[in-house]
Amino acid sequence: MATSLLRIPPPQALLRPLVVPERLLLGPGPSNVPQRIQAAGGRQILGHMHPEMLQVMDEIKAGIQYAFQTQNQLTLAISGSGHCAMEAALFNLLECGDTILVAINGIWGQRAAEIARRLGANVYELLKPPGEYFTPRDIEEGLVQHKPSVLFITHGESSTGVLQPLEGLGELCHRHGCLLLVDAVASLGGAPIFMDQQEIDVLYSGSQKVLNSPPGSAPISFSERAREKVLRRKTKPRSFYLDIGWLGNYWGCDGEPRRYHHTAPINSFFSLREGLAMLAEIGLESSWERHRANCARLCQGLLSLGLELFVKDEARLPTVTTVRVPEGYNWKDITAFLMDNHAMEITGGLGPTVDKVLRIGLMGCNSTGENVNRVLRALRDALGSCRRSRL
Amino acid sequence: MATSLLRIPPPQALLRPLVVPERLLLGPGPSNVPQRIQAAGGRQILGHMHPEMLQVMDEIKAGIQYAFQTQNQLTLAISGSGHCAMEAALFNLLECGDTILVAINGIWGQRAAEIARRLGANVYELLKPPGEYFTPRDIEEGLVQHKPSVLFITHGESSTGVLQPLEGLGELCHRHGCLLLVDAVASLGGAPIFMDQQEIDVLYSGSQKVLNSPPGSAPISFSERAREKVLRRKTKPRSFYLDIGWLGNYWGCDGEPRRYHHTAPINSFFSLREGLAMLAEIGLESSWERHRANCARLCQGLLSLGLELFVKDEARLPTVTTVRVPEGYNWKDITAFLMDNHAMEITGGLGPTVDKVLRIGLMGCNSTGENVNRVLRALRDALGSCRRSRL
Repeated sequence: MATSLLRIPPPQALLRPLVVPERLLLGPGPSNVPQRIQAAGGRQILGHMHPEMLQVMDEIKAGIQYAFQTQNQLTLAISGSGHCAMEAALFNLLECGDTILVAINGIWGQRAAEIARRLGANVYELLKPPGEYFTPRDIEEGLVQHKPSVLFITHGESSTGVLQPLEGLGELCHRHGCLLLVDAVASLGGAPIFMDQQEIDVLYSGSQKVLNSPPGSAPISFSERAREKVLRRKTKPRSFYLDIGWLGNYWGCDGEPRRYHHTAPINSFFSLREGLAMLAEIGLESSWERHRANCARLCQGLLSLGLELFVKDEARLPTVTTVRVPEGYNWKDITAFLMDNHAMEITGGLGPTVDKVLRIGLMGCNSTGENVNRVLRALRDALGSCRRSRL
Repeated sequence: MATSLLRIPPPQALLRPLVVPERLLLGPGPSNVPQRIQAAGGRQILGHMHPEMLQVMDEIKAGIQYAFQTQNQLTLAISGSGHCAMEAALFNLLECGDTILVAINGIWGQRAAEIARRLGANVYELLKPPGEYFTPRDIEEGLVQHKPSVLFITHGESSTGVLQPLEGLGELCHRHGCLLLVDAVASLGGAPIFMDQQEIDVLYSGSQKVLNSPPGSAPISFSERAREKVLRRKTKPRSFYLDIGWLGNYWGCDGEPRRYHHTAPINSFFSLREGLAMLAEIGLESSWERHRANCARLCQGLLSLGLELFVKDEARLPTVTTVRVPEGYNWKDITAFLMDNHAMEITGGLGPTVDKVLRIGLMGCNSTGENVNRVLRALRDALGSCRRSRL
């Protein structure tokens, strides 16, 4: 063409090569992606309705059923991050005017409450200080007082480092006519969870934590009770993209011919499939034990450095460890030192723990004795090198 | 552990290797992914708040501004498919009780109307038969009659193969106090579009068409008028994941410090960045011309095979060509023959064109003279080999 009609020229930055430095990602996620999963993500794609793609999705479904320990038919991966799965759970379970009780001891409860309010639900908050967890008595009092139809609780509170005990909560909720919705984004594969035995009604997770896949897909499962609540809805879910009826059909969960709904993130599903396969090969119990043991080693080492753990022994999340920012230090100096000198990510707090803690994640392939040693060495180095600015 | 607590064993299918056959994807998308973009998708990941990641996002933003021909600051990629971007546009633009006019001449208008209804908007439909497009007069009549605050229209109607002329529509909408929302999922990079000059208020696309990236991210941009409508909202958008205020902050569009919102699909963004880079290298006008020329060759070849094109010459979408299912043939026999004997995907109709057409996509790297020849040879083979079941 002789005369260009374009008023916006090609951006110079795009004409240079993509730069992706190598990092050891020991924050609360995403975690590093093993070579095998990277390779799956780099494969040529298939059509979203090709039989081989539907086969991969069936394998993902079986992998999630294993990781969740559930026989629920309505089990699939959301085409978005763990946060998108949180929305999928709430968009489908709640109608305008429904009552939800949200257990809040960190950022994830705050987020769930925010989303539920946007949906027009009556939201009651059950509060605990960051670093603490809820007892069955706390929960029962809330159920009696507010009579919710859904209880939201976080299994792995990655902003505070707390592992919420779930034993008995499902039964308790059901005795009070309430469904149990659990966020296991940060804990799945790193700490025991038994969806069916624990009577959890909706459970979701993310791809980028213990499953070691890139972010972009999120396992979710609905119990029969949850499915029935969805079927009884008087109004359609606000979101079509996250409508579990449509998604369940696309994922072959309803026995009907599979219909086009949206174009799935094919390569994210390839990666998720490999992450679930690696978990199946290692075995859930070995994975739980590995995360427990390496977290214990890390905690021991942190105490040896004179650091103070944020969460009490019995409630520690094995995947994300929180340690108080040592007195006299600025946490940003420490995380920047590790990044600059060790190409290693650990992070500061999030939401209610901002400025209070450092967070160290050991997830999936990153949960190794060698990484425990590396992060402890790097922290010792940082404590010796960073200026004690507030002394 | 001595006794296992697991009731669900590891699924056997997951213990076998991932199987991904190689295919030539000449359907309406996803399209094949070039090696360079595959490699980007298979890179090790970065944290979602690392400066290098924010740099990649800045480059994506600049790439979208180029592809859309816009200077809009509020320009970013949604963490989901093109369909998710449609929801993002509607969730942010519409409040309960708002009036939207949806131009429907295929499935995408139907979908937009469905989502708008779920949001509680007053939805009016402007209808045209599949295969036809809207004139400015059609639009003006609708604007005058229904006084909508938003008009939705599809630039590249991939279910019917129609390219909607956009000239003058933005001005027309603005004269009637209405915003113009355009779906360019199937057309971006394949047919001219000038967001600023054409006064489009919200424009979105997908990653998996001409941009040749895997599905899972979706470019979107809001004009100043659209941004002002969002700022005037009385209620928050129903979705937190798609809240353009939060997303705009994370993408550095508001001049504020960038805050954590959700964990972005890092590798999908790497791939999208490379797809946009390749478009910037080729140049928009070359890309448009290539799609035009190869579509013209394809149409000529289809006519030579005795086939009938579904859309009139002046309204044909250069990326997806629709051809009537030849009399006496079952379309499924033809698509299955191409898949089985040529490892090539073309598809049947979708929504209003089901059973009526075959759809052939030539997008991005797949828009070549060689692919035109391959698909024509394969079709000739199919027409000779498939049983004329209904004769």
